[in-house]
Amino acid sequence: MAYAASFETLRWDAPQAAGSFARLRDGRLVLIDQTLLPGELSHLVCTTPEEDWDAIKRLAVRGAPAIGIAAAYGVCLGIQPLFAEGKTPAREELLAKVGQTAAYLATSRPTAVNLFWALDRMKARAAAEKNASAADIAAALMEEAQRIHDEDRTLCRRIGRFGAELIRDGDTLLTHCNAGALATADYGTALGVFYAAQEEGKKIRVYADETRPLLQGARLTAWELAARGIDVTLICDSMAAMLMRRKKIDAVFVGADRIAANGDVANKIGTYSVAVSARAHGIPFYVAAPFSTFDLTLSDGGQIPIEERDPEEIRRGFGIQTAPDGVKIYNPAFDVTPAGLISGIVTEKGVITPVTAGRIAQFAQKEQGAAG
Amino acid sequence: MAYAASFETLRWDAPQAAGSFARLRDGRLVLIDQTLLPGELSHLVCTTPEEDWDAIKRLAVRGAPAIGIAAAYGVCLGIQPLFAEGKTPAREELLAKVGQTAAYLATSRPTAVNLFWALDRMKARAAAEKNASAADIAAALMEEAQRIHDEDRTLCRRIGRFGAELIRDGDTLLTHCNAGALATADYGTALGVFYAAQEEGKKIRVYADETRPLLQGARLTAWELAARGIDVTLICDSMAAMLMRRKKIDAVFVGADRIAANGDVANKIGTYSVAVSARAHGIPFYVAAPFSTFDLTLSDGGQIPIEERDPEEIRRGFGIQTAPDGVKIYNPAFDVTPAGLISGIVTEKGVITPVTAGRIAQFAQKEQGAAG
Repeated sequence: MAYAASFETLRWDAPQAAGSFARLRDGRLVLIDQTLLPGELSHLVCTTPEEDWDAIKRLAVRGAPAIGIAAAYGVCLGIQPLFAEGKTPAREELLAKVGQTAAYLATSRPTAVNLFWALDRMKARAAAEKNASAADIAAALMEEAQRIHDEDRTLCRRIGRFGAELIRDGDTLLTHCNAGALATADYGTALGVFYAAQEEGKKIRVYADETRPLLQGARLTAWELAARGIDVTLICDSMAAMLMRRKKIDAVFVGADRIAANGDVANKIGTYSVAVSARAHGIPFYVAAPFSTFDLTLSDGGQIPIEERDPEEIRRGFGIQTAPDGVKIYNPAFDVTPAGLISGIVTEKGVITPVTAGRIAQFAQKEQGAAG
Repeated sequence: MAYAASFETLRWDAPQAAGSFARLRDGRLVLIDQTLLPGELSHLVCTTPEEDWDAIKRLAVRGAPAIGIAAAYGVCLGIQPLFAEGKTPAREELLAKVGQTAAYLATSRPTAVNLFWALDRMKARAAAEKNASAADIAAALMEEAQRIHDEDRTLCRRIGRFGAELIRDGDTLLTHCNAGALATADYGTALGVFYAAQEEGKKIRVYADETRPLLQGARLTAWELAARGIDVTLICDSMAAMLMRRKKIDAVFVGADRIAANGDVANKIGTYSVAVSARAHGIPFYVAAPFSTFDLTLSDGGQIPIEERDPEEIRRGFGIQTAPDGVKIYNPAFDVTPAGLISGIVTEKGVITPVTAGRIAQFAQKEQGAAG
């Protein structure tokens, strides 16, 4: 068991003093391999978009914001070879490679919209610089990826502060999956709310759903909450409703992978079940996510593509075989919680409540700093 | 992976032709070791009450009715040594041993009332025979244990037929944990309902919750439904609500470990969560159990003792460690579903509906054969 008081979910590893172009040319992406937690805190080095794609696909890096950051750096990895051994590509070749790499990385996982949002930002930046030299375009892309990464730190802290206002001293909170430091640059969305409440001196207690089938709650959330000194108790997903009935839960906070224009939220499978139980017991249910998680092109959650994963994740998840060969297994990675079950969406611009298309549209127009 | 078209959950292994006394003296209890399924169909031989106690405790044999049967045979194992090498015990010694063995076996698991019910039957039979010879008391106890076992076969078939009336051709059903052949003598309660529907020619489809933490749904229910040719799809517990929202589930059937006088039902952890979701989606939620599962001494479910099990079942369940050492884990084995969420309780006397204390009291008075 490897605890770590501080850790970096992912980082671009290159000499800090070098300029942006050199950082792109000589850098590599280093990720915590989250599939090995909590047993082993081990890092994975990606030097190609293929390695990055694979890390996203098999959830070595996961969490909507972290996937976005990893994808942005993946574009940098994609153009690196064009500058190998002192070469300089033609501008057109470079721009084509950006588009091609982004299209490839977009195929890694279908649900989290931050992936597409980050790739779009990288493509837009390349397009904006299209008259610059190849080296300058590369430098701009390096800066853009770093900016996406840095912005996430700021956004998560803002989300944390807005969300902490919803938490009272002494509250017991429930979360599902991992929307924490390991799902973002370093602070988290739903768990960022808990960290902010803790930093404000509020005493809180957290129940973490283990989150079948891949146990992000058991492996990651329990790990990072314990590492930060938060009083955490792990439960199986099926126990949450019973705790609610016993009045042990004051509020629920979860993250999001994609939010439609009407506020329907796609998040880790099991989120909807928690929301249904919270409603049945009169417990507030909050979603915490940066605005990059909204997909305003989708009118409702029915349009969000839901990734189905390999049944073997359930049949042979963590050791021995626990379900018979030949038996059908259904393994959706996400579900959709309708806006009507959500008390508020905590964003970097404040808490959207009630969760309606109109209110979301208002927030979408707002500057980050403006009052709610 | 070991499929078996037919299997015996547990049996008393002794020469069938011998009289009851010889069957007691020379017999032993043979159980399927359910902890090894679905990987291995292996049998466990119990020759002492301690081995039986251990098999119940660690869930090698589980399911409220099967636990009752195993406990009844355990009393037979307890008195065996008194008759070893041609000895004959004093009557008082024998009766004391019956009481002592029953008290010991009662400590194996606290929630399933069928355990206490079966032990009470064995003690009552010994008391009724207290003026007989030691050998005749022993023979009577052997017969009583065999009767408890045989009655369960009959009860389950009756439950199945009553329950099947609630199922329409083409229905898709959901179940949680394993209330099947492996939880009873050989047919099951909730799954017995499915088998009866199948025998009546109804085409059904079943979703089985895997049932964390011990995965009885994945390991046992999926295994036995597939072995009987029923179309089964395994899901994680957290997926049930989402399937209900998508209108994939027509009704839910589960078993029970103890039912209070007002109809509150203790059953495998996660049952309550399913019941809450079923209610939220307007889906009927049925409990199937023999009358021995009722504990009419308890006015409501709040009085049912809930077993808490070892956190390591969650931390190191089926292979590698999936939660950090030192993190608190809450592991209740059961939860209580209030009567108000239950559409009907399917018993060997018919379907109790609505589920109220008055209706249950009426059924408790009824003869098994009488009309509803």
